[in-house]
Amino acid sequence: MNKIKFETDYQEGASPEVLRLLTVTNLEQTSGYGDDVHCQRAKSLIRKEADKPDSAVYFMAGGTQTNTTVIKHLLTPCEGVISVSTGHINVHESGAIESTGHKVITLEGVDGLMTAESIREYMTAFNADPTNEHMVQPGMVYVSYSSELGTLYTKKGLAEIKSVCEDFGLKLFVDGARLGAAVTAEGSDIDIKTLAELCDVFYIGGTKNGALFGEAVVFPKPETVNLRQFTTIIKQQGGLLAKGRLLGLQFEALFEDGLYYRNAKHANTQAMKIKQAFNEKGIPFLIDSPTNQQFPILTSEQNDELSKNFSYESWQPLEDGRVAVRFCTSWATADESVDKLVQSIKQL
Amino acid sequence: MNKIKFETDYQEGASPEVLRLLTVTNLEQTSGYGDDVHCQRAKSLIRKEADKPDSAVYFMAGGTQTNTTVIKHLLTPCEGVISVSTGHINVHESGAIESTGHKVITLEGVDGLMTAESIREYMTAFNADPTNEHMVQPGMVYVSYSSELGTLYTKKGLAEIKSVCEDFGLKLFVDGARLGAAVTAEGSDIDIKTLAELCDVFYIGGTKNGALFGEAVVFPKPETVNLRQFTTIIKQQGGLLAKGRLLGLQFEALFEDGLYYRNAKHANTQAMKIKQAFNEKGIPFLIDSPTNQQFPILTSEQNDELSKNFSYESWQPLEDGRVAVRFCTSWATADESVDKLVQSIKQL
Amino acid sequence: MNKIKFETDYQEGASPEVLRLLTVTNLEQTSGYGDDVHCQRAKSLIRKEADKPDSAVYFMAGGTQTNTTVIKHLLTPCEGVISVSTGHINVHESGAIESTGHKVITLEGVDGLMTAESIREYMTAFNADPTNEHMVQPGMVYVSYSSELGTLYTKKGLAEIKSVCEDFGLKLFVDGARLGAAVTAEGSDIDIKTLAELCDVFYIGGTKNGALFGEAVVFPKPETVNLRQFTTIIKQQGGLLAKGRLLGLQFEALFEDGLYYRNAKHANTQAMKIKQAFNEKGIPFLIDSPTNQQFPILTSEQNDELSKNFSYESWQPLEDGRVAVRFCTSWATADESVDKLVQSIKQL
Amino acid sequence: MNKIKFETDYQEGASPEVLRLLTVTNLEQTSGYGDDVHCQRAKSLIRKEADKPDSAVYFMAGGTQTNTTVIKHLLTPCEGVISVSTGHINVHESGAIESTGHKVITLEGVDGLMTAESIREYMTAFNADPTNEHMVQPGMVYVSYSSELGTLYTKKGLAEIKSVCEDFGLKLFVDGARLGAAVTAEGSDIDIKTLAELCDVFYIGGTKNGALFGEAVVFPKPETVNLRQFTTIIKQQGGLLAKGRLLGLQFEALFEDGLYYRNAKHANTQAMKIKQAFNEKGIPFLIDSPTNQQFPILTSEQNDELSKNFSYESWQPLEDGRVAVRFCTSWATADESVDKLVQSIKQL
Repeated sequence: MNKIKFETDYQEGASPEVLRLLTVTNLEQTSGYGDDVHCQRAKSLIRKEADKPDSAVYFMAGGTQTNTTVIKHLLTPCEGVISVSTGHINVHESGAIESTGHKVITLEGVDGLMTAESIREYMTAFNADPTNEHMVQPGMVYVSYSSELGTLYTKKGLAEIKSVCEDFGLKLFVDGARLGAAVTAEGSDIDIKTLAELCDVFYIGGTKNGALFGEAVVFPKPETVNLRQFTTIIKQQGGLLAKGRLLGLQFEALFEDGLYYRNAKHANTQAMKIKQAFNEKGIPFLIDSPTNQQFPILTSEQNDELSKNFSYESWQPLEDGRVAVRFCTSWATADESVDKLVQSIKQL
Repeated sequence: MNKIKFETDYQEGASPEVLRLLTVTNLEQTSGYGDDVHCQRAKSLIRKEADKPDSAVYFMAGGTQTNTTVIKHLLTPCEGVISVSTGHINVHESGAIESTGHKVITLEGVDGLMTAESIREYMTAFNADPTNEHMVQPGMVYVSYSSELGTLYTKKGLAEIKSVCEDFGLKLFVDGARLGAAVTAEGSDIDIKTLAELCDVFYIGGTKNGALFGEAVVFPKPETVNLRQFTTIIKQQGGLLAKGRLLGLQFEALFEDGLYYRNAKHANTQAMKIKQAFNEKGIPFLIDSPTNQQFPILTSEQNDELSKNFSYESWQPLEDGRVAVRFCTSWATADESVDKLVQSIKQL
Repeated sequence: MNKIKFETDYQEGASPEVLRLLTVTNLEQTSGYGDDVHCQRAKSLIRKEADKPDSAVYFMAGGTQTNTTVIKHLLTPCEGVISVSTGHINVHESGAIESTGHKVITLEGVDGLMTAESIREYMTAFNADPTNEHMVQPGMVYVSYSSELGTLYTKKGLAEIKSVCEDFGLKLFVDGARLGAAVTAEGSDIDIKTLAELCDVFYIGGTKNGALFGEAVVFPKPETVNLRQFTTIIKQQGGLLAKGRLLGLQFEALFEDGLYYRNAKHANTQAMKIKQAFNEKGIPFLIDSPTNQQFPILTSEQNDELSKNFSYESWQPLEDGRVAVRFCTSWATADESVDKLVQSIKQL
Repeated sequence: MNKIKFETDYQEGASPEVLRLLTVTNLEQTSGYGDDVHCQRAKSLIRKEADKPDSAVYFMAGGTQTNTTVIKHLLTPCEGVISVSTGHINVHESGAIESTGHKVITLEGVDGLMTAESIREYMTAFNADPTNEHMVQPGMVYVSYSSELGTLYTKKGLAEIKSVCEDFGLKLFVDGARLGAAVTAEGSDIDIKTLAELCDVFYIGGTKNGALFGEAVVFPKPETVNLRQFTTIIKQQGGLLAKGRLLGLQFEALFEDGLYYRNAKHANTQAMKIKQAFNEKGIPFLIDSPTNQQFPILTSEQNDELSKNFSYESWQPLEDGRVAVRFCTSWATADESVDKLVQSIKQL
């Protein structure tokens, strides 16, 4: 029997609505590289979602591509990007940022989140350092929303980060690979409009929220950045899809009547059931996450038992022999799968 | 009324068989990044097609990604790649190769094709040059099959190129973005097995032959190249699709019962009808192409007339006021569209 | 017996005045990296020479460093630099420009010189090309003065290049590795002031004109370029000398009373004697150079004969069996050496 | 009155012996780029010092160049270099390593020194991580001897590092910018022969020990690394000096009769007098350094007082208001300067 998988949020295909739209439009003829009506309509929907009619929107196929292309585009050759040490660009992108010549400058986060205070401390010390001409110039702050640990910025926290960025001339870039889970989480006070107010650039992740693949990059204030050459840089980085309409179509499906939010809400709801089950069992968590990634800490007996019927990611071994693991839900996580998992947790 | 488009071979979606397989497998749960049964099966089919059971097969989403990743992986930092000046990597990839630090060394081709003789001349002069320690070291030869002008290497011609590569220690890389059109063309004597014999690495283009997107890279003799780190470099270049199975599924559909060849054959057949119509009208061609790209030379009156109902690419203005244009067919080009075009050509 | 060397203009040490200044200041204590009184004084002398009191001046140790750093600094990631195909950055810098991610876009020169017309043609075609978003964006024109073939731009020719650069938004960069030989050549109508008027950036080569090493980069209109980060990029490229004063001291010696010009004039004078000797003998030249590089075309008998007592560079084999060679003079070329060479030429 | 400078070990010119050799050989004619008798002789002296007759020796002008070129040459595109977080390549080279595409992976050091144990822990965790295909592959360990904090590896400690490198397939690179101070320090048990036994590559710093500039890179076992292309990569990185003999001449002077060691010994002796003076005054140190860098912790009153007549580097502010500063001595530090400093310390 196959195990039920809670490994990631990209282990199924796409929302049926997405597949349906791909299918019914399949024989339409369109120009390549995103110059088509579906991309135009998707951009229009996203601009509306951001409440920024003039924002510039671009589509790319994946997160690494997106992070690399945006950072490469916005930094000068001697600038680096500030990230928490657990940031995706620092850990799990095979050095993609460095491969374009830029250092990832790491600060310690709190529960996977950057703090305005840590940026201010770093920049104050940097500016006071007489040898800083020999150092990588900080040019940008990168944060993930939701974070790699499933946690969320508050509107107040992100506004403080924005403020410190302005004080020190840093651009602010929000990685939204898991944006859906963030904006629909219980208690979240940041939506896409908020991001469009606070960031220089952010992206709306499709891959982990119902698309086959695809991320939508938004520059809310295009007049403040040089976008003339961005398409060429996307192409140079291998991120310009020949059949660009595939990206437009998917975001059209996701945003024309709220599918993006329904998908994410579903993932969060399923995660909360799992969270509750562990909580009721008295099993602790590595971190308190309100989104679709949950990190319970299991004894090896509990781990062995749950592993029989479920697969999930081993996240971090603890010194006492226990292990923090990750259960991940998605738009596709079935009620039946969650029920079985909850039952198994109860029986631990 | 919309014009009928002959602009490119990537203006529709995917072969129905491909879409169908994506749809029926949509809710299967698989691990990410290509570690799934569909990728395994697709690799197995491709290894069989190449008659190389030990070959290493990787999937990537697009051609620029593939070219960049393969070249970056196989060259040392001071090496460059030899290409004809019309080669895709030299013209239309926004400097992607150079962005990874490598020079594209250009030789003049004949009808878009590299000649063994030109490589031999270049390398002989290079080796005789006492200052060549200050020059980019040639490390690889890149050729496209079919070429950017729709033309084809003969088996003899490609074997000569292979031979000169061996003489000078150069790797041979075949860009197969339009491999289908090449291997199914009338008179072609190179198939995938031949490429697997002659190349160090080549790829089988899906994007232009019935897939939504996707290219399959084949290293026929994996023991001769360091592949241990190739996946990491794919990830670094942003080419590792999260839902990697999407690539596997598509190549499964394309190769399980010959769809790849049927698609390409169809494109070529449609192109030959168009070619014949221009020929019968006495309209000359920029080049004699046996594949799905045709380059007739139109007077401005002819161009104006055809432009009314058809769109196609303006390729190259000629000094006498005429213009070479490109008509491109694909797996999706309908008989009805070709018939209308042929009628319009007859009435010029 | 050692042969007399006419191979290059960097085969001796430095002008005695330079060595003397290095020696008498040897135990002065100064801060590192160019933050010292000698660099300040040298910059001041150069600003005066350029008649641009506000120009920004930087020192680097060698030409490849300088070309790479300037180009990397001024181009965006998707831009390339236009050069004649014989340009040093295209041929003899081991792909240094490409190693920073930028393509060298080559145009055919005339006698080693770029023409305004060829730039205009390229840019006009580029702007008319509907696919140019997929191409490297031209961002800069690079020319060498004197050229790699010893030839010179006229003021009119360079002004035309400047004009076409302005028309198309291209920066103009003049490689002055052999600037001394150029500005002091018979008939030259471009001096450092002219360059400061016409270029966005140029450099004054010291290595080939009496310094141990060193190039002085001049940005005549610093307000038009972002210089805030240039020192950091120099450091990043490995071009920031710890004992930066060594560069300042050398340019101080070269410019405080015209040594730079005397050195170059001497080299040119010696070259003209050699040129005259070949001319009188009826030996033709590959090119008519008014500067310190001379390219006579020798039969193999003549080559064998001259090779007995002199060493020089084999430049280019000709199809008829003759060979173009290069004789190079410098500030250090002794009258006695030239006399011996002239005698030998006469006896051919 | 000028302050006496203890800021760095590169604030004067060169040892008189070095200047003398440059002067007496000034008009010798040699080929460029290191192909000359002086470079040959210097290489021979260094091979003898290393007791490795087959070792490959190269000269470069500065430390950043050297670090960048060696690391770029030895790593594949997806590999990174492990360094302590205080390592020069991580802090003070403006992102030079990252500019060539490679991540600096940082571990916490002990007193500025890497420990074998920390490498083993990192590599063990890395190898156990199922997601490590998405991470930068560690390819090399970088250590500085003496370290950026003036501290020294023991032979035992370095051998342990070597051993762990072998266990995990990592190359070992020793940055010897301050190698002289290290090998001549009281209690040091590592000499150049030891390094040649233990490292894959190291360099002997000239800039900070009596040369105008220059570092000598040594590959003790050239058969174990691909050196065929190293000169081309040096050129590509802008590190190939036109008048390469200048580097050879300086290392000839430094190694023909032990000047290198006398210079370094002198610097250490002067530093020990200063150390003793602070010790006698009861002023604590940030770190216990046996070499030419000393890091006393001063109250602001002490700092104000010493600043009147001496300049030195402010290293690190402490939370209690005191500041750790750096006094640096060199081959050129005069007895008189040290005596004045010692007097001033006594009077604090």
